[in-house]
Amino acid sequence: MARIRLGMVGGGNDAFIGGVHRIASRIDDRFELVAGALSSTPEKSSASAKVLGIPRSYGSFEEMAEAEAAREDGIEAVSIVTPNHVHAAAAKAFLAQGIHVICDKPLTSTMEDAEALEQAVAKSDALFVLTHNYTGYPMIRQARDMIAKGELGQIRIVQAEYPQDWLNGPAENEGVKQAEWRTDPARSGAGGSIGDIGTHAHNLACFVSGLQVESLAADLQSFGAGRTLDDNAHMLLRFKGGARGMLWSSQVAPGNENALKLRVYGEKGGLEWSQEDPNYLWFTPDGEPKRLLTRNGSGATEASQAVSRIPGGHPEGYLEGFATIYREAADAIRAVQGGADPASAMGVLPGIAAGMDGMRFINACVTSSKNDAVWTAL
Amino acid sequence: MARIRLGMVGGGNDAFIGGVHRIASRIDDRFELVAGALSSTPEKSSASAKVLGIPRSYGSFEEMAEAEAAREDGIEAVSIVTPNHVHAAAAKAFLAQGIHVICDKPLTSTMEDAEALEQAVAKSDALFVLTHNYTGYPMIRQARDMIAKGELGQIRIVQAEYPQDWLNGPAENEGVKQAEWRTDPARSGAGGSIGDIGTHAHNLACFVSGLQVESLAADLQSFGAGRTLDDNAHMLLRFKGGARGMLWSSQVAPGNENALKLRVYGEKGGLEWSQEDPNYLWFTPDGEPKRLLTRNGSGATEASQAVSRIPGGHPEGYLEGFATIYREAADAIRAVQGGADPASAMGVLPGIAAGMDGMRFINACVTSSKNDAVWTAL
Amino acid sequence: MARIRLGMVGGGNDAFIGGVHRIASRIDDRFELVAGALSSTPEKSSASAKVLGIPRSYGSFEEMAEAEAAREDGIEAVSIVTPNHVHAAAAKAFLAQGIHVICDKPLTSTMEDAEALEQAVAKSDALFVLTHNYTGYPMIRQARDMIAKGELGQIRIVQAEYPQDWLNGPAENEGVKQAEWRTDPARSGAGGSIGDIGTHAHNLACFVSGLQVESLAADLQSFGAGRTLDDNAHMLLRFKGGARGMLWSSQVAPGNENALKLRVYGEKGGLEWSQEDPNYLWFTPDGEPKRLLTRNGSGATEASQAVSRIPGGHPEGYLEGFATIYREAADAIRAVQGGADPASAMGVLPGIAAGMDGMRFINACVTSSKNDAVWTAL
Amino acid sequence: MARIRLGMVGGGNDAFIGGVHRIASRIDDRFELVAGALSSTPEKSSASAKVLGIPRSYGSFEEMAEAEAAREDGIEAVSIVTPNHVHAAAAKAFLAQGIHVICDKPLTSTMEDAEALEQAVAKSDALFVLTHNYTGYPMIRQARDMIAKGELGQIRIVQAEYPQDWLNGPAENEGVKQAEWRTDPARSGAGGSIGDIGTHAHNLACFVSGLQVESLAADLQSFGAGRTLDDNAHMLLRFKGGARGMLWSSQVAPGNENALKLRVYGEKGGLEWSQEDPNYLWFTPDGEPKRLLTRNGSGATEASQAVSRIPGGHPEGYLEGFATIYREAADAIRAVQGGADPASAMGVLPGIAAGMDGMRFINACVTSSKNDAVWTAL
Repeated sequence: MARIRLGMVGGGNDAFIGGVHRIASRIDDRFELVAGALSSTPEKSSASAKVLGIPRSYGSFEEMAEAEAAREDGIEAVSIVTPNHVHAAAAKAFLAQGIHVICDKPLTSTMEDAEALEQAVAKSDALFVLTHNYTGYPMIRQARDMIAKGELGQIRIVQAEYPQDWLNGPAENEGVKQAEWRTDPARSGAGGSIGDIGTHAHNLACFVSGLQVESLAADLQSFGAGRTLDDNAHMLLRFKGGARGMLWSSQVAPGNENALKLRVYGEKGGLEWSQEDPNYLWFTPDGEPKRLLTRNGSGATEASQAVSRIPGGHPEGYLEGFATIYREAADAIRAVQGGADPASAMGVLPGIAAGMDGMRFINACVTSSKNDAVWTAL
Repeated sequence: MARIRLGMVGGGNDAFIGGVHRIASRIDDRFELVAGALSSTPEKSSASAKVLGIPRSYGSFEEMAEAEAAREDGIEAVSIVTPNHVHAAAAKAFLAQGIHVICDKPLTSTMEDAEALEQAVAKSDALFVLTHNYTGYPMIRQARDMIAKGELGQIRIVQAEYPQDWLNGPAENEGVKQAEWRTDPARSGAGGSIGDIGTHAHNLACFVSGLQVESLAADLQSFGAGRTLDDNAHMLLRFKGGARGMLWSSQVAPGNENALKLRVYGEKGGLEWSQEDPNYLWFTPDGEPKRLLTRNGSGATEASQAVSRIPGGHPEGYLEGFATIYREAADAIRAVQGGADPASAMGVLPGIAAGMDGMRFINACVTSSKNDAVWTAL
Repeated sequence: MARIRLGMVGGGNDAFIGGVHRIASRIDDRFELVAGALSSTPEKSSASAKVLGIPRSYGSFEEMAEAEAAREDGIEAVSIVTPNHVHAAAAKAFLAQGIHVICDKPLTSTMEDAEALEQAVAKSDALFVLTHNYTGYPMIRQARDMIAKGELGQIRIVQAEYPQDWLNGPAENEGVKQAEWRTDPARSGAGGSIGDIGTHAHNLACFVSGLQVESLAADLQSFGAGRTLDDNAHMLLRFKGGARGMLWSSQVAPGNENALKLRVYGEKGGLEWSQEDPNYLWFTPDGEPKRLLTRNGSGATEASQAVSRIPGGHPEGYLEGFATIYREAADAIRAVQGGADPASAMGVLPGIAAGMDGMRFINACVTSSKNDAVWTAL
Repeated sequence: MARIRLGMVGGGNDAFIGGVHRIASRIDDRFELVAGALSSTPEKSSASAKVLGIPRSYGSFEEMAEAEAAREDGIEAVSIVTPNHVHAAAAKAFLAQGIHVICDKPLTSTMEDAEALEQAVAKSDALFVLTHNYTGYPMIRQARDMIAKGELGQIRIVQAEYPQDWLNGPAENEGVKQAEWRTDPARSGAGGSIGDIGTHAHNLACFVSGLQVESLAADLQSFGAGRTLDDNAHMLLRFKGGARGMLWSSQVAPGNENALKLRVYGEKGGLEWSQEDPNYLWFTPDGEPKRLLTRNGSGATEASQAVSRIPGGHPEGYLEGFATIYREAADAIRAVQGGADPASAMGVLPGIAAGMDGMRFINACVTSSKNDAVWTAL
């Protein structure tokens, strides 16, 4: 198929996540990045676009949305990779023009913004994809599929954790831009670690288990001096249907780089997966030895093979998992362009619903923690 | 030194923990098992004693306490390895005779029993040692020592977990004796998984971190059909001084044999330890690469070396950790026999205080869980 | 910089390695694939090109070399991803036209072909890059750099192994195309496992240690029924300068997917690396605890950071390592186009010399094994 | 059964291996250590015996053999834990008196001594047990049993390695007694690393695979300055029946404490085991996912359960594996005392035949290496 013409909002210069989106969009060769509003000023945007070889540069996302919509060869989709507080306005601008949106998570920085965006998505014919990229890992797909097929029986326990250590020291006072906006409520919203990474853990726990969190009891901390947002969070989870769980997110746990880990236990077996070693999935059928299932290895199923690129033992990583979101977004876009039903075209892709779940998760965490960890419904 | 004459209450036949205590008492050659009231009837006791080569067998612990106290060569110490509900009565009988007690955990099955035992210990000249055996692992000693010396700085986060899977099915209905009494409130007390293994995790978290739990918010479940005691427990922890934590105990998590794991994070670094691979201690000084410290290896300190027997790379295991409790109990007994102060003779050995902490922990878990996970002081 | 116009020989349809080269060429956005002679017939080539969106398709590499050289906008470089026996002829055709060559390994299927190719490379102004892709892994770069800087002192021992299991059964008789040509001397050359994967292990051992194999004593086996090429090989190595080593390659070791592993020990320390977990490098300074160095983590040096794309804990994989070869090939091509000296432009990129080393390695293995594992110079 | 009266030759003071033997003899409560000739002088021996609480001390093993044989309650068995060059004379003295011998490995320091000892064993009614202790690990027993039952099919490849790092520096010049005699040909014999640890790897490879080494091609090195014995050895192996292998032993590989590792591959599957994590056995049936078999866990068979003491997840270690040799030696002694056939009483216990195999292994290594790694029959 012809490559989809893609624009990008944010992602100039040294922004980590912008580069990730660009590589992810290229890996499976379904996108061509042709336009950008990469930075907060026209000059910076233009300079970044030049370095990156992007033909068309705009001074703002508003300008880009309008201009590209007017072109015959305008962008068909846009990636939004700004800090959280810009997501909603940017996404709405493109949705209003019928341009498909691929947006970084969490959805927005406030619930008001989120609800407005939800309405905009509902009104638009364009798709809205939220890059909960960890759902793109092959063995995560396999885990979800195994659970859906009943291989674990009734799910009882879900243990999710996402510890990091990059904010253990006062990085926000040492010129680390990522740290500055991540610890700033104005740009990040009400959640610190829970917004940045807790939402990933929450999303993944639900994606894999097929369950929804009914309520949670959260205890949030700000260990870093002067921080107002949480940099560590502990919580108990109750899922609809009776399963129970725990979730830990942290940015102050030395020795943890990006240690997202998910464990799910049911009547008939257990599954364990770790993001830092993503090609492995540990599966224990109750009463049998633990098995090491590997991506495209002997124990791999169609669910993981469908999103794998290379043979077992040749590790795929974070960028390939991210690229799967882009690949599936491309396929979904082409499908709806061809008249397919948007919901079915989305398949398992995370969209506005997952985004709203994440916002409710953040809100519930903050509310519960303020009320001494009282159980709070999502 | 001459071997200490030891008796044993419980531990007949197939009882797992009795055999463990006997091996542990032999490894460092400081005890000689000379008397026993091993089972619930004189006949069974006598048969077990014969098989085990124990010279003197008694029909009950009361009889044994009295008779041994009357002998010139009577036992100096006794190991109590019965189900929980017998601990208090047995221990009091020997303490009353001035015979030192080495007792399995948890302390008792009820708080009333615990308090009575606490008083008995206070009145007696004999020592009371509680076999929180995991405190005997060399790398646990080293972790405690490193934290005490400030290598992690101010402690912020303690993550403790102890999942197992042996009660995932209805073992108590399939003739497994261990499962029968462990799931029976009359013999185990108010705690299921929290009493059997949660107390270990709680004890170890405190032992290593040097902190005390101030309050907890617990959510207990009984997933196994027909169970009244918890077989899975999730909780949030608040430590005195501001550290926070989580604790998970489970007997229904397939793929976990005896997966006690402790992680402690402070301002200056992190430590991680897993009971199933006990010779390793992972240490990450903040901002430096993770280091694999090994028992009697290059990174070992005096704290772990003092309780190691063989060189690095030659794994010591569960029995050696348990034996360290016995070794130190022997040394403490000889010390007080020689006039030493009991408190200083005990050193880091877990005793009645650790036992009372464990009882308070169980009680707080049950109370909190009954009240919708409200924060409950220990 | 503008993307380099790239052609491809081989890599049609389901060929594993063709797809890998294409993804690798896209990841860092320095190439654009514009021409191909992808299969053995014009029809198949054209069909594959269409599916892949490659504008220009040719019926043969000869035709392509001539036609592209004649175009103003003809390809600047070509990737050769055919079975081994086609490498030499194809490479020579493009080198003769001054088109840069990126060629899969091993160099060729016969020593005669290799020598002819070596001369062709010497005569041409174009660069010749051999995709010993494992040299592109960041932690391999760091290992090489640490050793070059003396952190291990004088190297004493090199242990290299590369076991797989995909030929444990008779895959070549079950319609697996990869297995058919890999086990056919006419297409693979004199080496089976030693040519396909042993050359990688040999190359990596030398790349990292900075040493050259002086002689080897090899024992080759063909365990699979009816095989004439080795599917398992054991050998002793003597390096120039006194270091010693062992190398094992196997395609019949169940449980090993692609388990390339390298361990290097010197007077002052040891390094261990495993391809299936490529973001980790284990470093033990003599007499100190083992350290886990991670890509872009605390222990990462400039040598690995320079070829990393994303933060520590976000795993990069096989495709990113491969992409680094392409990235550096692009930079080298642009450099020589700008007048740079070819040798310095190549930097650490594997080229014709590494290819000739690999051929000598294969030859020495076969010769030694035929002579009862006699020491054979490379 | 009544405890067997045991004597010990060597093992005074700080000797590592003496203490290991003593603990191993106690763990299963089948021995009582009642006599010793622990050191080279009567004074030292007596002092050590006193510290250890051993009732009878002798100035020499000759004296002890004679005196104990004359006593009604004399020792029934003796442990010989001296440096290698004393093994033969000591063993012969006790065998001549009909006292069972448990001897450390390797058998002796010279082939002449070995042959004389072989004859002495043949003549004596007493048993001779060689403490190839690694054969006592439960998962090693299970591996052997699985292979014997054909679960791997025809064995093709055996990879054995035993790297250490304790002689990486000049320990023998720094007052380390172990290092002094281990590097001294007069006390150790012709083998350095191959005698001390290579024999273990060789023994284990044969014990588990059920195969015998037909010939080997060895390349021995002495990397440590001034060393005459090998501190590193590489070799190719040919087994009777067609399997092939490699063996590496080293005392100069930084980062390896006691890293004995065995991997066996057959037509139908593969097994991997590592001494430092001895409770795990990795099993891959060809074409299926890798399984983690654990001691007394779900995948454990009778072969491992029979020599396990505690439940899965409660790690047993080096001392328990060693104790299994003692336990089985005790059972064998009681069996022959009761009239059983010595050969069948020995069961899988390593004895004189394993010892002679080890001596032939050492000799073949030295001979092959002197002759440029020529294939040398055992």
